[in-house]
Amino acid sequence: MKENLPVSRAAEILMQRDNITLLCHRRPDGDTVGSAFALYYALQMLGKEVRVLCADPLPEMYRYLYPDYTPSRVLEWPVEYVVAVDVATADLLGGLEEKYGQMVDLCIDHHPSNTDYAALTCLWAGAAACAEPAAAIIKAIGLPIAGRIAECLYTGLATDTGGFRFSNTTAATMRLAAEIMESGVDTARLNTCIFESVSKAKMLAEARMMSALQFYENDRIAVMPVTLAIRAETGVTGEELEDVAGIPRKIEGVLLGITIKEHEGECHISLRSKEPVNADQIAAAFDGGGHRFAAGCTIRASVEEAARLLVEEARKHLPKEQA
Amino acid sequence: MKENLPVSRAAEILMQRDNITLLCHRRPDGDTVGSAFALYYALQMLGKEVRVLCADPLPEMYRYLYPDYTPSRVLEWPVEYVVAVDVATADLLGGLEEKYGQMVDLCIDHHPSNTDYAALTCLWAGAAACAEPAAAIIKAIGLPIAGRIAECLYTGLATDTGGFRFSNTTAATMRLAAEIMESGVDTARLNTCIFESVSKAKMLAEARMMSALQFYENDRIAVMPVTLAIRAETGVTGEELEDVAGIPRKIEGVLLGITIKEHEGECHISLRSKEPVNADQIAAAFDGGGHRFAAGCTIRASVEEAARLLVEEARKHLPKEQA
Repeated sequence: MKENLPVSRAAEILMQRDNITLLCHRRPDGDTVGSAFALYYALQMLGKEVRVLCADPLPEMYRYLYPDYTPSRVLEWPVEYVVAVDVATADLLGGLEEKYGQMVDLCIDHHPSNTDYAALTCLWAGAAACAEPAAAIIKAIGLPIAGRIAECLYTGLATDTGGFRFSNTTAATMRLAAEIMESGVDTARLNTCIFESVSKAKMLAEARMMSALQFYENDRIAVMPVTLAIRAETGVTGEELEDVAGIPRKIEGVLLGITIKEHEGECHISLRSKEPVNADQIAAAFDGGGHRFAAGCTIRASVEEAARLLVEEARKHLPKEQA
Repeated sequence: MKENLPVSRAAEILMQRDNITLLCHRRPDGDTVGSAFALYYALQMLGKEVRVLCADPLPEMYRYLYPDYTPSRVLEWPVEYVVAVDVATADLLGGLEEKYGQMVDLCIDHHPSNTDYAALTCLWAGAAACAEPAAAIIKAIGLPIAGRIAECLYTGLATDTGGFRFSNTTAATMRLAAEIMESGVDTARLNTCIFESVSKAKMLAEARMMSALQFYENDRIAVMPVTLAIRAETGVTGEELEDVAGIPRKIEGVLLGITIKEHEGECHISLRSKEPVNADQIAAAFDGGGHRFAAGCTIRASVEEAARLLVEEARKHLPKEQA
């Protein structure tokens, strides 16, 4: 790893440039767009020519951050200085990699896995969100954390921490959120946009999946099938189903939640456990793996057969019940 | 209102007492038990005899705050100094009101509606949670915000703010959470206990309700029936259904979510809207009311008929669709 660029230096460099292209990672989330647009608005206030580019469309749910932004309008501009925001590796640029992968001048990031692909990298590996180094750079530029900049940064913080709930959240994350709130941003409104929004297809799919929950071993094991029929009948996308594996473990008393996603010819299994059940060991019995409380494996069988095999194995890993 | 007691004075008074009874409000939530137990552990560290009492059983989901606490053991102690925690009115003491309602020496609270029923009141009306004045008192006593005290305070903050999402959350709330995190508390684990926990009955009831969603006016109105059959077949309690009214509005594109709870002979209606739909006006058409985005009414009709009447009225309040 080359030397890590201090935020003060990153701020100086950005202030010296007149035409800056900000790049988000593919499949953009709230942190990459929030951090990029925070810098976009800050640099615009300095009179720079700035644009934000992303290989995939900017998410509609974060439209409040860029209500009037039309990237196509600026695509023909000359590329002068290129800044990747929250992009850990060049291939995460997606469709932008071919054009920009070798010409990233500065990368602002928080992923410990950053591959140092840019000419200069300002990496805060302990930060919960890229919004944290982005905020520090904006402050080093001398601009206040307020208005739309603050909304962008809050969106980055809130989305990457699951609403300040995940273990990546630090005291510094909370203090930056406090600063943002003090600037007068209506964070309750932002939280509604971020957390109270689900597609009709996903809600109907979740209803189907939750209705189909099966319980075993005195309700200590819950199995949730995600069949091809549910996907076909509701129109839910694979991406929308990425976070459903947490559902069965939420149920009081459930020590192991098993989510079975049906694919052609095989099932993809997600295991989520609570103390003292080790999900990793159960996944290992099917040549899978993971962590103590979250693991996965693939089973080439029907949903019903996969469920039977998994429950049979999982039984051995449950604690003895008290009489 | 009598004079508001400063936290420094509340701390002095508590330090002078040897036997302190802390009272929670009835139907205890995370803030009343979190704030009371934070004070309990703090006062125990000072060598005081302390107990926490509540008219209703302490919630099992917050058991991590009081793993070894058995209130019955201390019920026979002499009552010397009585402190109500997060209790806005004497009748919120529930079954404890008769014995203690007239003898509350000190009330520590954050509700602007506090009726000043105690001899002394330390009220932080701008605080999101009672955990905020409780923390200030503990600091004024000279104790660190750490360990189990910090876990209790975090639980109060996180529950009363819906995980720092509601509009009552302030910069001070976030800064206190930052202090708590700095003390080394595993807030991610606490968040799992607080937010990732739902009864089997409630999950199955939600699945049924979500499956039964009906959509009108190009999916801009969503109606969710909560029938007596759903309640009977899942065993979900009325209390568990209190927060379901937010579900239909979560759906992208829905401008008005209507939740219809069937009771004997009538339906209780919750309306939740988004800009520009005024829920209050729709409720008013049925002699109900509320706020712009959250209102309610009662309709003496079947679920189907109530839905028909509500949708008919709601149509008039939707914006014109763009061609």
